[in-house]
Amino acid sequence: MTSPLVLADFGSFFVPGHLVETTGAPVETMVLAAGGVPVRIDPNGTTSVGAMYVQYFRPVGSERRPPLLFWHGGSMSGVAWESTPDGRPGWLDYFLRAGWACAVVDAVERGRSGWAPRDAHFAAPAMLRTLQDSFVQFRLGTRPRAATLEALREAAYPGCRFPLEAFPAFMHQVVPRWSDTDDLALAAYAGLLERLGPAVIVAHSQGAAYAFRAAERSPGKVAAIVAVEPAQGGTSDGAALADVPVLALYGDHLARDARWPHIRARTDGWFASARTAGANIDVLDLPSRGIVGNSHLLIMENNNAALAALAAEWLDRQRLPRSSAQWERSSNA
Amino acid sequence: MTSPLVLADFGSFFVPGHLVETTGAPVETMVLAAGGVPVRIDPNGTTSVGAMYVQYFRPVGSERRPPLLFWHGGSMSGVAWESTPDGRPGWLDYFLRAGWACAVVDAVERGRSGWAPRDAHFAAPAMLRTLQDSFVQFRLGTRPRAATLEALREAAYPGCRFPLEAFPAFMHQVVPRWSDTDDLALAAYAGLLERLGPAVIVAHSQGAAYAFRAAERSPGKVAAIVAVEPAQGGTSDGAALADVPVLALYGDHLARDARWPHIRARTDGWFASARTAGANIDVLDLPSRGIVGNSHLLIMENNNAALAALAAEWLDRQRLPRSSAQWERSSNA
Repeated sequence: MTSPLVLADFGSFFVPGHLVETTGAPVETMVLAAGGVPVRIDPNGTTSVGAMYVQYFRPVGSERRPPLLFWHGGSMSGVAWESTPDGRPGWLDYFLRAGWACAVVDAVERGRSGWAPRDAHFAAPAMLRTLQDSFVQFRLGTRPRAATLEALREAAYPGCRFPLEAFPAFMHQVVPRWSDTDDLALAAYAGLLERLGPAVIVAHSQGAAYAFRAAERSPGKVAAIVAVEPAQGGTSDGAALADVPVLALYGDHLARDARWPHIRARTDGWFASARTAGANIDVLDLPSRGIVGNSHLLIMENNNAALAALAAEWLDRQRLPRSSAQWERSSNA
Repeated sequence: MTSPLVLADFGSFFVPGHLVETTGAPVETMVLAAGGVPVRIDPNGTTSVGAMYVQYFRPVGSERRPPLLFWHGGSMSGVAWESTPDGRPGWLDYFLRAGWACAVVDAVERGRSGWAPRDAHFAAPAMLRTLQDSFVQFRLGTRPRAATLEALREAAYPGCRFPLEAFPAFMHQVVPRWSDTDDLALAAYAGLLERLGPAVIVAHSQGAAYAFRAAERSPGKVAAIVAVEPAQGGTSDGAALADVPVLALYGDHLARDARWPHIRARTDGWFASARTAGANIDVLDLPSRGIVGNSHLLIMENNNAALAALAAEWLDRQRLPRSSAQWERSSNA
């Protein structure tokens, strides 16, 4: 039995995207649910594109530190930080109970942020990862021959820390993705930092790549970055990180993967450039510290609380500003 | 300043849907984000279809009453119950502070529940409501000539209680929908009731139509229903409601709408049949109680807290069982 979580407030808002106009499309009459009364659907008019959903939780006393912004990875939503697929507390729970104000986003196009079927950013077919592809790309093991627990156990890398019996449940949180929405996502992240920054970004995979670019785009608004297996570095020379301490965490079995040695080498190269510019970047390679068996999904594996504690201890050593987040601002902008 | 919210626990899980197999589709190599390392995407394999996301909040002491399940309406997600588009507390906040355990779903296909581009349930093009269509269908007024505040004010029905300056912000929470997913949605709702019931369902519009059908399908699992502007009644003779007290709430301006007089007459007919079978159904027509100006979106309008209080008072008069919800069960089923 853990102690109660005492929240001063919780709520949600959207970072606005933009409005687009559709004209000249045919009007239809549809029945939207079995037995429903037919409704006239006119697709002509104004729709919202590129808004981003933000859910926040503010423990009592959290104003003394900047908020943590949780940015999930590709094919995922903010659910990644909540309860694990096998029903244990996730990183969100850990940091809330440690007294941090936390804001969890669903990136543009994902989850509650929605998407816009008629907008050009979404013209390519939506891609939904299979269980087999996820198992390989998220570096749990080789391609399983079936979606059974037996087959997953056979395919898993030695010592895999993902709770394999819950891998089918993990697949429930995998959402469709598109490949042409980076500009929308980055604009929304800049809007979020404008409202809640300076903030600490805790980011996973594609979310970490967005975090580095956001630090380049929004100077003074990023207080620190915890990058869990970043998918990319930034796009500049790294000078933007001179005042932004970074902790990068990597799990196990990178060398077994077709892409990860290349991904990490590129990111390490960008880190080297950033260090030359004065950046303070700590790379925590878990296996080299004796923590073995973690995959790309380390935030939900069987040692996820211990890994959250490592990140929290690192954050406690950084000099961070008090919160100046505008939680209460009306979101009607 | 409100008093803190003291939670024993919060978390999330998915009600499982089913797994489907794809075979014979071409394998592609894609770059998923600008500058990313190319990745081989094999669409063949297993994907999850029809799972439903559930986020729950359990105030200390909430076990003495059944949980409230919040089921949103069509084109929307669970966000509808959270902070209002103009940044005030929503019904979720109200009922949590009144001490109820609350579980908010994103229905199948909506929000964090995701969708499955290759599944037949999603074969029809996704439909995203425009601002103009939403304004009319949600009964705020006639079709506005533009998406400006001036045009919205001109088009609004007299005394409209929706905070019109936040209507563009409301559009951020409107998500795409499909018309062939009722079977998936109903199966997921039955799974939710199996885990958390007996429960009170607080449902809006299409969600209320699902609630009545869920009561038919899951006897003994629905303790009461608060139906906010139900889109339909049930499909049986109403006998399933004999032990399920219902409060139906209706806003204003139904007679001005092309569809709502017909929708309400059908539902009232089903209620009459249910009453013959012994059901206890209270219909609260807000204008006839002197509460005027509410639209279909009354849960987020300027009197939303007073309306939540009406529903809470009604619930306090019902005989409800203690909670027997299985919050902690592993979701790996």
